[in-house]
Amino acid sequence: MTARPLRELLRVPVGERPDLGRIDPAATPGGPADKTAGRAATAAMARPLASLQERLYAASTAGDRRRLLLVLQGMDTSGKGGTVKHVIGLFNPSGCRIQSFKAPTPEEREHPFLWRIEKALPQPGEIGIFDRSHYEDVLIARVRELAPRSRIDGRYAQINRFEESLAEDGVSVVKVFLHIGYEEQRARLLARLDNPDKHWKFSTADIDERALWPAYQEAYELALERCSSDAAPWFVVPADRKWYRNWAVSRLLLEHLEEIGPRYPPGDFDVGECRARLLAT
Amino acid sequence: MTARPLRELLRVPVGERPDLGRIDPAATPGGPADKTAGRAATAAMARPLASLQERLYAASTAGDRRRLLLVLQGMDTSGKGGTVKHVIGLFNPSGCRIQSFKAPTPEEREHPFLWRIEKALPQPGEIGIFDRSHYEDVLIARVRELAPRSRIDGRYAQINRFEESLAEDGVSVVKVFLHIGYEEQRARLLARLDNPDKHWKFSTADIDERALWPAYQEAYELALERCSSDAAPWFVVPADRKWYRNWAVSRLLLEHLEEIGPRYPPGDFDVGECRARLLAT
Repeated sequence: MTARPLRELLRVPVGERPDLGRIDPAATPGGPADKTAGRAATAAMARPLASLQERLYAASTAGDRRRLLLVLQGMDTSGKGGTVKHVIGLFNPSGCRIQSFKAPTPEEREHPFLWRIEKALPQPGEIGIFDRSHYEDVLIARVRELAPRSRIDGRYAQINRFEESLAEDGVSVVKVFLHIGYEEQRARLLARLDNPDKHWKFSTADIDERALWPAYQEAYELALERCSSDAAPWFVVPADRKWYRNWAVSRLLLEHLEEIGPRYPPGDFDVGECRARLLAT
Repeated sequence: MTARPLRELLRVPVGERPDLGRIDPAATPGGPADKTAGRAATAAMARPLASLQERLYAASTAGDRRRLLLVLQGMDTSGKGGTVKHVIGLFNPSGCRIQSFKAPTPEEREHPFLWRIEKALPQPGEIGIFDRSHYEDVLIARVRELAPRSRIDGRYAQINRFEESLAEDGVSVVKVFLHIGYEEQRARLLARLDNPDKHWKFSTADIDERALWPAYQEAYELALERCSSDAAPWFVVPADRKWYRNWAVSRLLLEHLEEIGPRYPPGDFDVGECRARLLAT
């Protein structure tokens, strides 16, 4: 394990275009030596994560507006759902606000693309999790030409302004691209086909999307290049190895929560007087 | 442990008024022998609970509208928050919709009391959790006389109709009253006072509410009597022992999910054909 913060190691530098074809999706940068060590290290983060979360929530009861928003993006089968289950599962569920974004509803299509996003933001003290996000509007929208190219091109700047305003309002935005390989996706889709209990997760549309792999990789590279900002950086997490993915996302959350450094607020009452009153009951 | 389902043991019979003063809040009806066994038994339910939850969610993707709603009520410090943390923490957070109800906002007060409740209901396939609920409108509202008595008296029937309509729409409503003792509440409030990290959970208003203990117990007895229906029964869970409380609520959820008996839906595609298409990519 490296002493360098993981967020520095995985961060997409501002203005730089990552070459996803050159980032090994099975790599484990900065991570534990193997699966056993990785799982243990992730489990060991459960307590500090839950403790920081409780402080974050407690601070909000005294007016602290800070909160965290984890944005999860990645190709089909990249493990967005698994990350929520295994990483967000380490937290107290009552402080988590999870939103999964599907294809926009007719009502959502009537509004600007950030409308449904704004409605799902975490409140002060909460940890918000987006399983897909406003980035779909520059990913599938670009690849599938769901809007004129000029409109899509305008969205990157809109996203940057939006995320900057979030940061100014106390939201630590942690954007994670779960990077899996083309071969690994095939294996995972085949595994779904081979297990009837997983058929509900499979759709023939998944194969159609897979055929557009190069276009998606390009759209991701563009989004990572244009929208990795100081206010809201992107992190590329190699995700072929699930144990590394879970460890890395946990670690990124831990580093960000430690940076926030929330503190329990003091009480606004006289402890001795309250004690006496209680003991008299 | 008894072979009789816990739901039968803890259920408030329809039309019967429970005498809370005669139900020992430190009892462990139907439960494991002690704390160690209780914790182990709760942990052992994590896998079946998560598995049933996944099936419930999977079934909803094929049109099954069934879902579960856990309603948690109880005096201050009775462990509503702790139950969410320890019991709901056993589930996949992405399928849980947790709503904590505080004093109604001005906007909420403009609407009928069930308005904010309906907005927070679990969607098909989800597990909804209410930390406090529409019952506050016949509990604190009754004790604190927040509305004319005649209007409050009309709410029990409104609640019963509402919950019946939920049941008809596929919602399994599990209403749990966390029953703690007067002495135990004092001890828990004192513990909060004695730990500065817990001061944010404490308010002098808690002592004022405690002074109304008998009125609250009466309001609870009335609500349990009038609103324990076949469609949506009330369960009284003795809650002085946290390990029993967690075990009992987990067990109640397990029994209800087993009764629902959700199944993975079959796929609507040709597995062989999809396999061939995938292997060609």
